Amino acid sequence: MTAHPSGQRLHMDRAVREDARRRLATIRGHLEGVLRQLDDEQIYCVDVLQQLYAVRSAVDKVGEVILRGHLQEHVVTASERGDSQRLVDELMELLKYHRP
Amino acid sequence: MTAHPSGQRLHMDRAVREDARRRLATIRGHLEGVLRQLDDEQIYCVDVLQQLYAVRSAVDKVGEVILRGHLQEHVVTASERGDSQRLVDELMELLKYHRP
Amino acid sequence: MTAHPSGQRLHMDRAVREDARRRLATIRGHLEGVLRQLDDEQIYCVDVLQQLYAVRSAVDKVGEVILRGHLQEHVVTASERGDSQRLVDELMELLKYHRP
Amino acid sequence: MTAHPSGQRLHMDRAVREDARRRLATIRGHLEGVLRQLDDEQIYCVDVLQQLYAVRSAVDKVGEVILRGHLQEHVVTASERGDSQRLVDELMELLKYHRP
Repeated sequence: MTAHPSGQRLHMDRAVREDARRRLATIRGHLEGVLRQLDDEQIYCVDVLQQLYAVRSAVDKVGEVILRGHLQEHVVTASERGDSQRLVDELMELLKYHRP
Repeated sequence: MTAHPSGQRLHMDRAVREDARRRLATIRGHLEGVLRQLDDEQIYCVDVLQQLYAVRSAVDKVGEVILRGHLQEHVVTASERGDSQRLVDELMELLKYHRP
Repeated sequence: MTAHPSGQRLHMDRAVREDARRRLATIRGHLEGVLRQLDDEQIYCVDVLQQLYAVRSAVDKVGEVILRGHLQEHVVTASERGDSQRLVDELMELLKYHRP
Repeated sequence: MTAHPSGQRLHMDRAVREDARRRLATIRGHLEGVLRQLDDEQIYCVDVLQQLYAVRSAVDKVGEVILRGHLQEHVVTASERGDSQRLVDELMELLKYHRP
């Protein structure tokens, strides 16, 4: 969704976007580490799960960074822009998948 | 943790390991897609969050696959092997991070 | 938190409050059902867990109802009121505990 | 589910059952506190949400207590009893709803 009733296009703040990109690049490296772990025939399930949960937790942290940016840039100003209902519905839908 | 009181070494079932590896390779591709999204200055926060939550959900699915393997291979046989307390403590600790 | 920088006091919408109260009264009944289950010496762990997760899920639903009201009544208007930073910080803190 | 292929009936350990009951009785009191909060027309959404999340967290703790008992009493002995597949399937289904 990019076109809003107000005609304004909402987009991600540059600093947030760059922070998210840096974090995701690190996560890609971490994920490759888990892939290498899985080459080891002797690997123990729990050791892999721990690494996987760490990856997941880092992904959730990126989500938190982007969500905070979205609240600051777009949600708190929705009433001024006149798209409150749309932003609230979209956010509640999104929060079904958000994990802290 | 790989050495158990019984002296047996527990390791991940081969089929589970290969399934997990295939899934993680796909997730790496998906993650690279999100990284490309973040190159776009016009990108909308919510569009990135949706992709990110899809990545997270796929990571959780890998966790589920590995956990099921661990239960089948190692937990249900713990009493026979004599390391029940250790396996239960380890599993409860792990479940703090498990997400369905 | 009830006093805001603007001097306005924010409070829960009446309809939301009554919806939440009705739901919680139902949950109390459900909880008493689980307590009775626990009087049965023959009860199986999994049967109790299923009821408990249903209670938990109903509690989360009340949280969703109140959160939506909060977004609609207070968050989308924060920029107009001039307490955006405060509302965003408070909301991000809250979302650490929110579950869908 | 109480009848198992082995013909044995699995039931909750007494100490776990009593611990769970004590905790749930406390939670009922806490829930009644939230109901009273909701009688206050001036109540702020965030104050109620915080109490509600505390209730939810206490419910999750009861789930953890019962789950640990289930693992110790029934899951680690499944291979000996011969109902491993059933216990694993049931547990994986349950873990869809478990929250730490």
